[in-house]
Amino acid sequence: MPYTAINLAQKLSLITQHWQPRTVAHVNGQELKLVKFQGEFVWHSHSDTEEAFLVIAGKMEIRFRDGSIFLKAGELFVVPQHKEHITVATEECQALIIEKAGTVNTGTAGGEKTAAEQWV
Amino acid sequence: MPYTAINLAQKLSLITQHWQPRTVAHVNGQELKLVKFQGEFVWHSHSDTEEAFLVIAGKMEIRFRDGSIFLKAGELFVVPQHKEHITVATEECQALIIEKAGTVNTGTAGGEKTAAEQWV
Repeated sequence: MPYTAINLAQKLSLITQHWQPRTVAHVNGQELKLVKFQGEFVWHSHSDTEEAFLVIAGKMEIRFRDGSIFLKAGELFVVPQHKEHITVATEECQALIIEKAGTVNTGTAGGEKTAAEQWV
Repeated sequence: MPYTAINLAQKLSLITQHWQPRTVAHVNGQELKLVKFQGEFVWHSHSDTEEAFLVIAGKMEIRFRDGSIFLKAGELFVVPQHKEHITVATEECQALIIEKAGTVNTGTAGGEKTAAEQWV
């Protein structure tokens, strides 16, 4: 039987829009998504999931109401459930996100950056 | 409030033994583990979890009874629940594993390569 590897760089090359996460795999009800982004997202929180960010290229900041964290390539952070946050990148950042399958990127905030779930 | 990034390279530098996965984070009941290994593991399966492998450095093979897959750095594969497999690396491989928290590395097979859950 043929098995196929998921190559993250190849998948990232197919993503042409910022703030549009694309699912590459499911693991035990979690989804692994790749995303490219630059600039500021929107303040939001997730009522039903923790959200892990692993930076693949570039760097990002996750701001909270009481502080912030900077992540560069090879660094990981897990945003707690219900924790209000906003992602910020001064230059393009590429990241792998791990969160509950079906999670909406803008959480309960909605707005124009809300993206439909889509695989790549 | 101070927030701390999890640097995968720094965590990997603390791992000195092969076949000893070390947990670096939990996400929604899943654990993210780093592991270094070389040689052949043991045939086993997991009755209660899928298991994702993301190669960080080096390369690996996952053999199944009906085929195999080769993964190099930046490549990902999700081993299905119940699927018998064995991991093989001709040179040292460093990987991130995502699976249900509490998963035993040798699954139902047991044996000398069985590792206790431990954080790094």
